[in-house]
Amino acid sequence: MADTHGSNSASPMFDQIDRALSQGLYVQVRRVLHQMLAADIALLLESSPPSTREILWQLSDANQHGEILDELNEEALASVLKMMDAEKLASTAQNMDVDDLAYVLRALPDSVYQDVLQQMQSQDRLRVEEALSYPEGSAGSIMNTDTTTIREDINVEVVLRYLRIKAELPEQTDTLYVVDAHDQLVGDVPLTTLLTVNPNLSVSEVMRSEVSTIVVDKPVQDIANLFGRHDWVSAPVVSAHGILLGRITIDDVVDIIQEQAEHRMMGMAGMDDDEDTFAPILTSTKRRTVWLAINLCAALIAASISNMFEATLAQIATLAVLMTIVPSMGGIAGNQTLALVIRALAVGHINDNNSKVLIAKEAGIGLLNGMLWASVVSGVVYFWKGDWTIAVILAVAMFINMAIGGLAGVCIPLLMKRFNIDPALAGGMALTTVTDVVGLFTFLGMATLVLA
Amino acid sequence: MADTHGSNSASPMFDQIDRALSQGLYVQVRRVLHQMLAADIALLLESSPPSTREILWQLSDANQHGEILDELNEEALASVLKMMDAEKLASTAQNMDVDDLAYVLRALPDSVYQDVLQQMQSQDRLRVEEALSYPEGSAGSIMNTDTTTIREDINVEVVLRYLRIKAELPEQTDTLYVVDAHDQLVGDVPLTTLLTVNPNLSVSEVMRSEVSTIVVDKPVQDIANLFGRHDWVSAPVVSAHGILLGRITIDDVVDIIQEQAEHRMMGMAGMDDDEDTFAPILTSTKRRTVWLAINLCAALIAASISNMFEATLAQIATLAVLMTIVPSMGGIAGNQTLALVIRALAVGHINDNNSKVLIAKEAGIGLLNGMLWASVVSGVVYFWKGDWTIAVILAVAMFINMAIGGLAGVCIPLLMKRFNIDPALAGGMALTTVTDVVGLFTFLGMATLVLA
Repeated sequence: MADTHGSNSASPMFDQIDRALSQGLYVQVRRVLHQMLAADIALLLESSPPSTREILWQLSDANQHGEILDELNEEALASVLKMMDAEKLASTAQNMDVDDLAYVLRALPDSVYQDVLQQMQSQDRLRVEEALSYPEGSAGSIMNTDTTTIREDINVEVVLRYLRIKAELPEQTDTLYVVDAHDQLVGDVPLTTLLTVNPNLSVSEVMRSEVSTIVVDKPVQDIANLFGRHDWVSAPVVSAHGILLGRITIDDVVDIIQEQAEHRMMGMAGMDDDEDTFAPILTSTKRRTVWLAINLCAALIAASISNMFEATLAQIATLAVLMTIVPSMGGIAGNQTLALVIRALAVGHINDNNSKVLIAKEAGIGLLNGMLWASVVSGVVYFWKGDWTIAVILAVAMFINMAIGGLAGVCIPLLMKRFNIDPALAGGMALTTVTDVVGLFTFLGMATLVLA
Repeated sequence: MADTHGSNSASPMFDQIDRALSQGLYVQVRRVLHQMLAADIALLLESSPPSTREILWQLSDANQHGEILDELNEEALASVLKMMDAEKLASTAQNMDVDDLAYVLRALPDSVYQDVLQQMQSQDRLRVEEALSYPEGSAGSIMNTDTTTIREDINVEVVLRYLRIKAELPEQTDTLYVVDAHDQLVGDVPLTTLLTVNPNLSVSEVMRSEVSTIVVDKPVQDIANLFGRHDWVSAPVVSAHGILLGRITIDDVVDIIQEQAEHRMMGMAGMDDDEDTFAPILTSTKRRTVWLAINLCAALIAASISNMFEATLAQIATLAVLMTIVPSMGGIAGNQTLALVIRALAVGHINDNNSKVLIAKEAGIGLLNGMLWASVVSGVVYFWKGDWTIAVILAVAMFINMAIGGLAGVCIPLLMKRFNIDPALAGGMALTTVTDVVGLFTFLGMATLVLA
């Protein structure tokens, strides 16, 4: 029996393709590509610089194109779509699931998108237009409409016969939905139930009537948490009036979970989670430059604080040597808290009842760690510079800055959340600015008062 | 029909419980808790400070305890286990799936763990000891052994009858596995196939013989990528000889994906992904202190660089005011690259063939952004300080540091990966140290050569 270990078995294929490409053996590249799974080809495309990507796309099997497009991340998708004309896209679209197709079409520029719709058969066009009518990021935008529905007054035996006539069930089907004459969802029957109950029972006798549903306008973030918490494999999507509209399956939710996690991690470094690993240099440079501009402002604010104390710095150069330690430690302490709070907000650990407890706890940790490291650093600096006054000033400034850092690490994301700013994106920069300003101001300010 | 919107419907319950707790109405707390899903109770426990957590645990339904324990994150789990004695734990363990139980038992201190095993019935003990015999983090440690197997020479009709006699299928079953007389996996039959084919066909005629399997010692990280890439809901786990040992289901994989993502995000801030949001202050302080110690060393290294140029700083205090800008911009540029590379490593975008392309690309971005921001900053500084020499020195230092930052941002994680160091954990600190040292050294060094 064939042992296809996915990514792992794909990696020798990646090597084969790389060798064949470098020798210009395109026939061989094509042969290997045609043996690969769509998901692995997508990974290969994402892992290739733009020029290779184009060659690989041309050599891949056109019948797999729909599946490959669906597996690509947003920016790699956009770069591949540029290689296709409207006609090709429309013919690729024919065999795709509605939710996957909606994902692909959303990546198209408006003009091309209209062209593609024109080329599509009217039935496909209607399906897609419906899927695109739900706002991006809502349950409707990721649901699939291929639910299998049954009525509650028939026997399981009849259902079984109906399924055999149907001869095929949509991918990832694990549950049949029971609806009334108005398409109102009244229950569901897992396939496992269908297979194990007495076929003479009626659907109403075997169905679960307490079904967890997702309303069509629910944001995808909440949906990801629901699936994660409740171990769902699929869930029905209903209108505000309980009409069954479609279903969301775990494979799409896994994609969302991964995107959200990437967004948090990449966002903290000022990066877009869509960023293509092998995007052209100019595109990436332009994209990252905004964040560098913001950071330059933050760095200039910090410099302007030191500038207030230029006279003191001119008098005692040792202060200049030591002054970077204070913002650094405050920033790290604050960042630890920030990461904890961003995670807690994402998984839903924080509510109005417990935020005060959290603020008190993090401020307490800041105070304790501040005390500890202030003592350590004063010892180190005395040993190094032989000056107790500067050592004590540094210790006090560091203590204050680490306590403020802890407090800011919890208050900044909570405030941002309240004003609908994404703390994963803006929290780190705001925090660092606070700890830079407070750290430099307390250290140089106290030094000016005491020493100058 | 009941509309249980999970976390969302749970949140009014959270408020009710909070009110009832603050008024000491424990009977009411108990009543609300008994209506809640285990997953929501776990979320509530994770969202509560330790004292409240203990009260809530005592008031919750003992029949739900197993499920709740399984849903808790590692550190919250450890804190709840401390409230239970070995006997209670053993009785809770009786109704748990092996993989869930293994997760819980791994969180116990050794002495208690032996006690709990003693208290368990011998059959349970054997099951658990087997699950615990696979190393943590391997496929074996998260697999469930409750596979449903069939033989290939029987008819589908017989399978259907067998399932009805069985009367129940294990949770999350979407596929039956076909094994030979030696338990060798020879194929699988999805439930959807079973329901749609002609019952007179034999299993060998309807089964898929090209089954993707997971070898029992495969690391869980790779498994998460496989599920994500191939949209699996479950996958069979086999021994090195192809013997079917169990199966891994998507719900456990979703947990792994979330943990890995948290690990990357929290790790970049020097935090443990297990960290309990409401851990006691002393525990958290102790845990975070290691990272602060490492950062203090890094900050002292940076300070010792400035210290080399103390004479120059004493001469020109403006250098002290401006010197923090250079490491800051280099650090941000490097961190952007670092985040991109850590993500790329995690999803498998980087291999031996393309790492050189990536290094060249990121170095290029660093050069371009370095040029751009060096020009901007020299203008700003000239305008501010009216000194072209210092402005140019700052620009050159910044250009060099941003280019090095980009290069370090890609080389550091690739090198760490090669030496099996986790770049998500140690990459940021190593990078910042490089950009601090290079930034301060180039800026102050050039200033000393030119101005002093």
